[in-house]
Parts: sequence; structure tokens; C-alpha cells
Amino acid sequence: MSKHGPRLVVPIDLKKKPWEQTLPLHNRWHPDIPSVAEVTVGELFRVEMVDFSGGGITNSYTAEDIKHADFSIVHYLSGPIRVVDTDGIPAKPGDLLAVEICNLGPLPGDEWGYTATFDRENGGGFLTDHFPCATKAIWYFEGIYTYSPQIPGVRFPGLTHPGIIGTAPSMELLNVWNERERELEKNGLQSLKLCDVLHTRPLANLPTAEGCHLGLVKADTSEWANIASEAARTIPGRENGGNCDIKNLSKGSKIYLPVFVEGANFSTGDMHFSQGDGEVSFCGAIEMSGFLELKYFCYLILVFLI
Amino acid sequence: MSKHGPRLVVPIDLKKKPWEQTLPLHNRWHPDIPSVAEVTVGELFRVEMVDFSGGGITNSYTAEDIKHADFSIVHYLSGPIRVVDTDGIPAKPGDLLAVEICNLGPLPGDEWGYTATFDRENGGGFLTDHFPCATKAIWYFEGIYTYSPQIPGVRFPGLTHPGIIGTAPSMELLNVWNERERELEKNGLQSLKLCDVLHTRPLANLPTAEGCHLGLVKADTSEWANIASEAARTIPGRENGGNCDIKNLSKGSKIYLPVFVEGANFSTGDMHFSQGDGEVSFCGAIEMSGFLELKYFCYLILVFLI
Amino acid sequence: MSKHGPRLVVPIDLKKKPWEQTLPLHNRWHPDIPSVAEVTVGELFRVEMVDFSGGGITNSYTAEDIKHADFSIVHYLSGPIRVVDTDGIPAKPGDLLAVEICNLGPLPGDEWGYTATFDRENGGGFLTDHFPCATKAIWYFEGIYTYSPQIPGVRFPGLTHPGIIGTAPSMELLNVWNERERELEKNGLQSLKLCDVLHTRPLANLPTAEGCHLGLVKADTSEWANIASEAARTIPGRENGGNCDIKNLSKGSKIYLPVFVEGANFSTGDMHFSQGDGEVSFCGAIEMSGFLELKYFCYLILVFLI
Amino acid sequence: MSKHGPRLVVPIDLKKKPWEQTLPLHNRWHPDIPSVAEVTVGELFRVEMVDFSGGGITNSYTAEDIKHADFSIVHYLSGPIRVVDTDGIPAKPGDLLAVEICNLGPLPGDEWGYTATFDRENGGGFLTDHFPCATKAIWYFEGIYTYSPQIPGVRFPGLTHPGIIGTAPSMELLNVWNERERELEKNGLQSLKLCDVLHTRPLANLPTAEGCHLGLVKADTSEWANIASEAARTIPGRENGGNCDIKNLSKGSKIYLPVFVEGANFSTGDMHFSQGDGEVSFCGAIEMSGFLELKYFCYLILVFLI
Repeated sequence: MSKHGPRLVVPIDLKKKPWEQTLPLHNRWHPDIPSVAEVTVGELFRVEMVDFSGGGITNSYTAEDIKHADFSIVHYLSGPIRVVDTDGIPAKPGDLLAVEICNLGPLPGDEWGYTATFDRENGGGFLTDHFPCATKAIWYFEGIYTYSPQIPGVRFPGLTHPGIIGTAPSMELLNVWNERERELEKNGLQSLKLCDVLHTRPLANLPTAEGCHLGLVKADTSEWANIASEAARTIPGRENGGNCDIKNLSKGSKIYLPVFVEGANFSTGDMHFSQGDGEVSFCGAIEMSGFLELKYFCYLILVFLI
Repeated sequence: MSKHGPRLVVPIDLKKKPWEQTLPLHNRWHPDIPSVAEVTVGELFRVEMVDFSGGGITNSYTAEDIKHADFSIVHYLSGPIRVVDTDGIPAKPGDLLAVEICNLGPLPGDEWGYTATFDRENGGGFLTDHFPCATKAIWYFEGIYTYSPQIPGVRFPGLTHPGIIGTAPSMELLNVWNERERELEKNGLQSLKLCDVLHTRPLANLPTAEGCHLGLVKADTSEWANIASEAARTIPGRENGGNCDIKNLSKGSKIYLPVFVEGANFSTGDMHFSQGDGEVSFCGAIEMSGFLELKYFCYLILVFLI
Repeated sequence: MSKHGPRLVVPIDLKKKPWEQTLPLHNRWHPDIPSVAEVTVGELFRVEMVDFSGGGITNSYTAEDIKHADFSIVHYLSGPIRVVDTDGIPAKPGDLLAVEICNLGPLPGDEWGYTATFDRENGGGFLTDHFPCATKAIWYFEGIYTYSPQIPGVRFPGLTHPGIIGTAPSMELLNVWNERERELEKNGLQSLKLCDVLHTRPLANLPTAEGCHLGLVKADTSEWANIASEAARTIPGRENGGNCDIKNLSKGSKIYLPVFVEGANFSTGDMHFSQGDGEVSFCGAIEMSGFLELKYFCYLILVFLI
Repeated sequence: MSKHGPRLVVPIDLKKKPWEQTLPLHNRWHPDIPSVAEVTVGELFRVEMVDFSGGGITNSYTAEDIKHADFSIVHYLSGPIRVVDTDGIPAKPGDLLAVEICNLGPLPGDEWGYTATFDRENGGGFLTDHFPCATKAIWYFEGIYTYSPQIPGVRFPGLTHPGIIGTAPSMELLNVWNERERELEKNGLQSLKLCDVLHTRPLANLPTAEGCHLGLVKADTSEWANIASEAARTIPGRENGGNCDIKNLSKGSKIYLPVFVEGANFSTGDMHFSQGDGEVSFCGAIEMSGFLELKYFCYLILVFLI
């Protein structure tokens, strides 16, 4: 008989802080954040993750933690995970990484999540004029169903998915991002139509060392400071995937990600128990910790000729 | 905050035999098999189960165990589980028990199953004239997907479900079954049309003490002998649910079962990773051990007036 | 062989006005609006319908018609259809009418629809502060898919459904509605919480003779004037179903409607090619004309005992 | 506003024979069968079709027509349809034709179909030893549902699809087929394992002029005789698609077909109201006439590098 069951490559201990985990987490995109694990194409492996706040937001029935949420630390990601083929050759820039989500769910003993509206004075969100105060609802999971004591009479099945899934950018691509977002922050949107916005989702979120976590990069080093000063924040979705917030990225789906650095350096986090079409109201998904069971498929180079 | 996550009410240790489990299993239907656990309506609870053979069929790449399979021992069931309402009042005959399947899957570390064709000399099956010899294929699970080294080139997602789910019969109902099946065994089918067969699935499987396991009923007692002599075998599906083999009884489905004895005495087993529409070829599902996370809903008495 | 195919009971000619149709339409709920057709339980029948505006809003690429839309005329409904059993006995108050949607779609030659935002000065809607001006997008249908020249780059499959489906109220129920909505219009909402709003959807829309169409009721009669003065408008959803705006009421679904008057007097209209979860922004669905193929099932009287 | 709705390119009049249709049907695969219509990439068009027997099997409640069914005439296909791009340039060998099924269903007034088992003396089928006599069941359609007077108590929703969909073979490919099937007919299967059979579905069905229909090719010419002597029969599925019998080829699916001749010369037929996984028992689908609304997408040349 053969070996079976997923190999656990990124374990999470929810009693520990994100930076205390056996394999420390990161909350920035940068080519020089070292991989914490290696996985072979075709192998079934398991990645565990904290919720986006790394436990900063708790299951207490108060919105105080939401009111004072620190956005410099979002989102804690598991990885990067290096990808090699069956001969041990790493994925290389230009490859296409197909990631199949074979299974996912909450971590045993932690079957709960939360939705929230941020305070208008601290981030706000889509309907902040209508709902200016911080609010929080705790959701308990019952297999595929969930209910909230704060929203009585409602119980529904969720479509669980990782909000963030992506590959590390190359230095070249990172420079494109930083330049683009500095321009956007400086000059704002120039007369975009609704459908332009839908397509480009323009959002700037410039690098900052505050709240920055860089995984295995040693803190208090010049290397750390350099990376922190240019590493991309995780809130905008970009060409590497990242903060996709696609509810259909659930069990049985496959996502095709471009490879920009040797080994692909895949990271994921920000699991959602349920969400609408995009996370419109900023914390509109049911946020949770959880696990993914993943499988990488062949790299492809596609040439399309119309 | 509130308690969350399922309560484990029937644990399984796969290193032990079915009769050595903390809560011993049973493989017959009878009103006098005592319940091994109690569950409240509205509570999320977890039931673990062995595969139908109780580990008799292994993940070896040989069909020897299939060839000599002992059908007197099928199917090992978890339970019976007694159902009470939030005041502790047990379900009573005439109630309707709604069972919601909130979650299910393989037991961690045991993510495999098997399909088989029985030998023509030992049970056979639908196509036994075409495939007269015992065969077995081992299937490994990768989340919702499965593949088999014996059937190369095939990989597909399954629709996992318990093959058997039901309530204990009353003594009165049990007598109806035994009389009906004795008659059928004696006189055979009388000129049934195809659609009669589809509706009635006539199948006789008379009581036998051989291979009989009765849970908490003490062996070597006259009570045991009495029960064994009249307890219904589990292969036919009957008015209590039982061997339904309905692939759609998966996550998110609800089954409505009649209650015949105080407390309902619900049992389940024979988990399948995947199956077609009914288990036509006898061992045509991918057999596995596994767990269910269940929730009972209100009892209803329905009066339909046309 | 047997008769087959649906029987057309409410035909629509899109070149005619709503009140010129062979079977004239109505846009109010009232027990005294006479049925225009009769259908037997178990029979497959076809109902055609205009879009909610009865052709007032056209497929021109301008929002002028939206800007000056007349809300007194919404929604033009097909029916009422009287329901009898196979012995010709009409459904009676207290029965439950199960309506199965066997098929639906656009009318041949009219495979288009529209979405719009109403002008802040004329109705407005959920996001009227962000989008204060009248806008309109025309959507063309390609089987299950649709695209709009006004929203380039988008093409998606819809989940087509009738926005309105319901039975005629009794006079008693109509009085409850009118009293409730007068009270609401007078005193407004009293400190409702979000989840109260979600459950009760409080919305008042009092009777008016302006724009009123009452099907077979002769205009310029005292009967017409009486009915018009008390007939319920169709914008609020109420106990008779009505403006449900449930996207899942598509092919293969069944809706259970209470019967309040002899014959049930079922009406339907306001077809949507696609919609989110509820029609939040007022004209947020893709509005269209179309057809339904329906089947009524048995009446049930349910007695639930917990 | 824009043109909308599908363009009817292959009309069917069910009162006429297959060879009397305005655009005559064909029941063989050959590069020299001329196209009967032309369609542009991106255009929505409608293709109507007869049932596989071209009306030879009727909705009478007797199996006499099944017992004497003539297999030389199966399957009558609509087409071939030539495909050009928006500049009028035809698809060329090596292209990939993506065909989207936007809509499909029965022809209005002909909402019925049939299942059958062929007589052991005339074709037989998978279970012919158990069911040696010709049988037929008529199924009436009610939107997505169907029922049969011959199988009382059953009513279910179908997943309608064209059993046959494909492109014309090149002469080179046709020669490969004929050689392969002659070899198979001569020497039979050589010790194939079950999974080999599943992958290769070896089935020989050699050319015959009997029952042959070649669309616009003039009968009683040497050209007709030549084509008939080498044109492939339609029962085996082959590299051009053809007799796929894939139930999931329903509304909203896309099929990617290789192009072997200029213009692709796409044909389709053999519509099924419902079917299991493959048409195992030969006439196991519910056979029907019907229509497809289709759209061709861009041609792609794919280069895959692992």
C-alpha cells in the first residue's frame, strides 16, 4: 500500500502569536522573504493559518478590539512555500503554478469566526456613513452551517475559501507596484468610469515598517529594514493573486498563479467561512483561522494565438 | 462567548476490533439493543464509524480478503444514540426525527477506501456472470478527490455519505419484517414487474446468531440469544431507513426518519466516499471508515389532507 | 399517446399595451379582481408576462424613460388564474398552493432586459447619494448568458425568476395590510434593529387610483373606483407572496403559497433575468418580459406539533 | 439598440423526412459533405435537429418500431456548419473550435422522447441477456421534468444535451479510422484490461452505402458512391468528438473541438433529454428532437510545455 493523507507543512498553534509559530508568519509581499517549507508538484500537503488579525480580534461579545484594530499588521500569511518538481527542480519565473484546493475548513477546536464593520474613525468601509460605529458579530460553525448570537434567526451554509492566495513578486514587479501606488496616492483616481474601477480595483497601500512581519528575515538587521521599506502591503489584490476575496475558491477549485521568483514562493491566509461577491464592506466576510489541503499541478507555458 | 464545535459521542479507535471499542458496535436492528449515548435536539455531535467490515477488509493490494469475506458480520453500526429534547424528554414512537448532516469525512490518518466485486462463489453481485472472480481496488483520498493505483488514469471528486442511517424498529415492526422476509425466502418473488422491483426492493435476509454483535447486550446470556434469534440483518433497506445507499445524503442534507421506540435509538454506519445511484453491484461504493457531524431537529407530527 | 406540452393560458402580445392584451393585466392586489383563466391541479400551463413597466421602459440607449418613470403603474401582473382540482372544485381559503416552476425564459424575439438606477428626484434607491442620476443599461440575452453594451467586458449567466408571484388576498387580509401601512406611513419605523428590518421589511405603499389597472373590472364604474381605493400596491412583499425578489425561484423550484380566496387567484409578473440576493437598489435586477411554465400541486393542510 | 436573439441557421420541420428538410441532414462523417450553412465566430445561432432515428421511432405505445429498427440510418445530424471569423476567414486545420452551448431544449409542440432496449436479435445491448425483448417507454417533458406512462411513479428533472457533436474529419484522419476499425473487426480486442476499454472505447462500425445520407451530395452520382464507401459511421466516438454521450454537455458548457478541414464543418444531433454517465445500454438516454443555441469562440493554438 501507498502513503496517504496530507503532509502538514505549515502547522499553527493558536495559543501562540504569529511571530512565535514554529514557522513564523509574514504580512508583506517581497521576493527576499525566505521560504519556510518545500513541496513537490503532485504531493498533497496541508497549510494551517491564523485569521487575518493573527488572533488580535477575539471571540468576545464586544467590538472594542474592532474599534482599535491595527491595520498595519494585516494580513498574517502562512508561507512562503517553495515548489519543486519531482526531480527537485524549483519552479522558475514564467511558469504557471496550478494550485488545487482539495479540502479546507476550520482548525479543530476553533470553529468560530467574526464579521465586523470598522469605525468611521478607524478605516470605515463601504457603508460607513450608515454604520459609523465599530460592530462585531461572532459566528459559530456547525460543519457547513453557521449562526451568530448577534444576528438571531439566521443560519446558513458557507462557501469557505482563503481570502489571500498568491506567489511572491519579483523585484521588478514589486517596483512596478510601488511606483503605481505612489502615483495613485499622490494624484488620486483620474476620472475613472464605474467599469474601469471594477476592472482595475485601484487601491494604494504603500510600504511601512510599522507592524511589518517578514517571516524568517531576522529583525533588527539592515536586511529587515530594507525589505520592510519596500515590501508590498497585502490589502490590494495585484498581479500575483494576493487578496483575491473570491468566494468560489473553495473545495474542488483550481487557481492558476504566475511564477515570478525561483520556487514560486506561494503564500496564503485570511480564510473566510463565507463571503458575498468580493469583500465589499472591508470586513464583510466571516473571518477565521483554518487549514487548506492543497496540491500543485504541472507548470504550463501557454502560447495563445488568436 | 458560547461553547462551539461538535461533541464527540461515539469515538472509534481503528486499532481496536468493533467489539473492543469504548462504545461497542452492533450489526443488527432490534428494539432491545441499549443506546450507548444520549444527544439533545439542536446539539451538534460527532459520530465516528468503522467501515462496513469493521476492518476485516484491509488496504492490501490483494483480493484474498474479499474472496473470503464473511457476510454474517455486516454492517458494523455506531450507536444506538438516544434522542431527547431540551427538557430531557425522549423522542417517542410516532415522532419524526429530522437529522441534519452538517459535516462528514474520513478519520484523520485513515484517508483511504476500497471497491470490490465479490466472488461468484461468495455472494457475487449484479454483473457476477461477467466478473466472476473477487477483485479489489484501493482508493486514496485527497480531500474531495480520490484515485486508485488499481485503476490508473482516473481521479474524481466523491459525494461522501453514510450508506446506513436509521432508527431502531419496534418489536411490532420487527415482527412484520421477519414475517415478510420469511415469506419472500420461502416463495420467492411473484411475477414482479421492473417498476415494482424498483419500488419495493424485495430482499430477504433472515436473522442468524452467526456473526451477530449486539453492542451493550452481554454475550453468552439468554437475552443475547433471544435478541440474536430475531434481530433484523442490516443488508435490506426497510421502513426505518437503514441501508439506504443514497449518495445525496451528504453534507447539508437532512433525512427524516420515523421514530418507533422511546428515544428513537438512531444508528449509522457503512460510510461511502463515492457511489452511483444505489449500490447496484453490492460493493460498488468506495467503502471507508469516517465521521459524521450531526444535528437533530424538532420532531414533527404531520397531518396531510389532500 | 397522450397530450403533451404546456397549455398557453395567458398570452402576451408585446406590440400591445398592458390593458389591450386579450386577457388584460392588473397592477394591484384585491379579492374582487376577476380571474382571467382557469387551471387544473397537475396540468402544465404557460403564463406570459410583460416587464414590470409594461413596455414603458424601452431598449433605447438613453435613461430618459428611467428619469421620468411612473411608479403608480408598477407592476403589471398576468392573471389572476383560478385553480381547481381534477373534479373542478376550486381551491379554498386555508389551502396551500404548491406552484412548481417547470420552465421559464424570455419571449421569442424579445431577448433583452435592462437594469437602472432611478433619479434621486424620482424614487432614488439604496445608493442614491453615490449615484443620484438616472442611468440605464440594456442587457442582451444569449441563452443563459447576458452582456451589456453599457458595461463592456462583462458577460455572465443569469438565474431567471419571476420577481412577483402570489395569490389574491382576502378582504380581511387586505384590511390588515392597509391599516398596517397607514400606521407605518404615519408614525414611521419605531427603533427597529437591523435584524428586525431584515425580517419584517417594513414598507408602506398606500392605495391610489392613479395608474391603477384592475384587469377585467370595467373602468369608469363605481366598482372600479371602490376597488382602486383599497387595492394593495405591488411594491411591498406581503403574506401572499407578491414582490418576493428571490433569485432562486428559478427552473425546478417550488413555492408554497397560502390560499385566501376561492380559486386562489394566482398572479405573477416582474420577471428578472438575473438578480442578487434581493433587489436592493430598487431596479437592481435585469428586468424583462418572459414566460413561465407552471404546474400546481396538491393542496395541503399542514398541522405541525412540536 | 443592437440586434439580439439567435439566428436560425438549421431549421427542422418535423412533418418532413430527414432528406426532405430545407437543409438536408447527413448520417456519416466525411470531409467532402458540403456545409449547409455558415456562421461567424461570436454570433449566437440556432440549430434544430431530429431525433437520432429521424422520426422512424414514434410516440406510439408499442415497441414494434424498436424491434425492427434500422441501424444503418443512425444518426441523422444537422449541418455541417462552416465557421468563419469576423473577417470571413474560415477556420483552418489545426485550429481549436470552442463551442458554447447557450441554450437547448425540445422543439415547441414536440415535447416528448423515448428510451428503449433493442431486441437481442436486432442489436441488443448491455443487459440483453436479462432483457432480450424490444421494449420502449415514452417520456413526456414538463419543462425540466419528465415522466413516462410506462414507468409509473417516476418523475425527474433531466440534463439535456446533444449526444453527438463534432467536426468533419480530414481525409487523412478518416483513413486512420477506417484502417483501425477494419483491423479491430478482423482481429477483435487483444486482451484489453477494463481500464484500457474505458480509455479507448474500441468499437468498429465500417462504412456502408446502405441507409447512407450525405446531405447536399447528389444521390445516384459516382461522387455519392465514393463518399458512401468510405464515410465513417456515427456510432463510435472518435477524435473529432462525435458520439460523445456526455450528459454534462448541457446549457452553459463549452466543448473544445479540433478542426481538421477548412471551415471546421461542425455537425450535431442525437439529442438526449436525460442520460446517465455514458449511454451504456445503447438506447439508454431519453431520445428526442430539439434545438441548440450555440456560439463559437476564438480559435486557439495551444502549446503546452511541461
